[in-house]
Amino acid sequence: MARPTTRGLGTRRSILAAASGLASVEGLEGLSIGRLASELGMSKSGLFAHFGSKEELQLATIEAARHVYVDEVIKPAVSAQRGLPRAWALCTAFLSYVERGVFPGGCFFASAMAEFDARPGPVRDAIAEMQHKWMETLARAIGDAIECGEVNAGTDPEQVAFELEAALLSANWYYHLLSDRSFFGRARQAVRGSLSAVATAKGRRRLPRPVR
Amino acid sequence: MARPTTRGLGTRRSILAAASGLASVEGLEGLSIGRLASELGMSKSGLFAHFGSKEELQLATIEAARHVYVDEVIKPAVSAQRGLPRAWALCTAFLSYVERGVFPGGCFFASAMAEFDARPGPVRDAIAEMQHKWMETLARAIGDAIECGEVNAGTDPEQVAFELEAALLSANWYYHLLSDRSFFGRARQAVRGSLSAVATAKGRRRLPRPVR
Repeated sequence: MARPTTRGLGTRRSILAAASGLASVEGLEGLSIGRLASELGMSKSGLFAHFGSKEELQLATIEAARHVYVDEVIKPAVSAQRGLPRAWALCTAFLSYVERGVFPGGCFFASAMAEFDARPGPVRDAIAEMQHKWMETLARAIGDAIECGEVNAGTDPEQVAFELEAALLSANWYYHLLSDRSFFGRARQAVRGSLSAVATAKGRRRLPRPVR
Repeated sequence: MARPTTRGLGTRRSILAAASGLASVEGLEGLSIGRLASELGMSKSGLFAHFGSKEELQLATIEAARHVYVDEVIKPAVSAQRGLPRAWALCTAFLSYVERGVFPGGCFFASAMAEFDARPGPVRDAIAEMQHKWMETLARAIGDAIECGEVNAGTDPEQVAFELEAALLSANWYYHLLSDRSFFGRARQAVRGSLSAVATAKGRRRLPRPVR
């Protein structure tokens, strides 16, 4: 495979942007080089110069989607105060990313997880690592909140992270399945419930008030 | 299409059992008549006698999976007392159905929802109707619990149903993605948390004690 030139890198980026959008709707398995070539109006051999195999294309697409996720969900939350405000910001940034349709088929990683959960291999491993890191990010925010005295000592950060992720993931699925935006409000209420249940009095003051 | 004979119905049932298991792993779109014929060692024309099109096969497979779901998740919970005990029984029956691998790829409907959430048409409509009914079943159990004085008046049964379903759905995904059974325990704890948060003192006595 030829070493990518600057122009090649630009093309690679635009190919992967198209690939991640397409995969969020049709799945990573639907991401054949032929299908993507016709979508982009490129030749199959042109695409092969960038990605030697379907699996290489899938892994590169996951990596490209990870960058989008960091920009759209992680970075906006980093400006929030450490502890409960950041946990809340991570959750609302995720819901915003789904609601704004950053990927046309919904959360790229939710789709990828659903598609590959029962298919062992490097693609599943890459998705599993991403999901694991996301859960760790949520759990770290809760761990910080314990240190800040906003969440009761003895709380299991991973349990809270699971509950937050459960609400977010389900909002993603039900919003798309039933075309009903009210699931974002349901998810925010569920997140608030999980955080309030473990928050100290100080922590509850740091959570935004419910919007009625 | 020939009217099905008794023997034909038997075959149809075994075809659909194979189809629903296969679809839970490879997706309903992977369920081509050719793929299923080779899986069952049948001729494609033999399968065509049962299902005139791929969409007809997909819809029949969803209907067959619905029967399995009713037998494995709904019916076991009906014997539980109306109200919170039944809400709890529905949730634990769901987790048991996933943990026992009733469908090899995990919950059939979770997989189907993930696959078709962004693809409008009769298949998505059938899946959406099933998911809607399941949410209604959970919400009805909470509504009953309000009537029984086990859950605070003014509680929104649909919000609680969303929180329960969120925990169940996420346990299904994370268990399969990370091959980690601890997610069933996390889901049970999340379900208990959501139910306890809205339960009256009487209601809390009706919930089973946490297993440590």
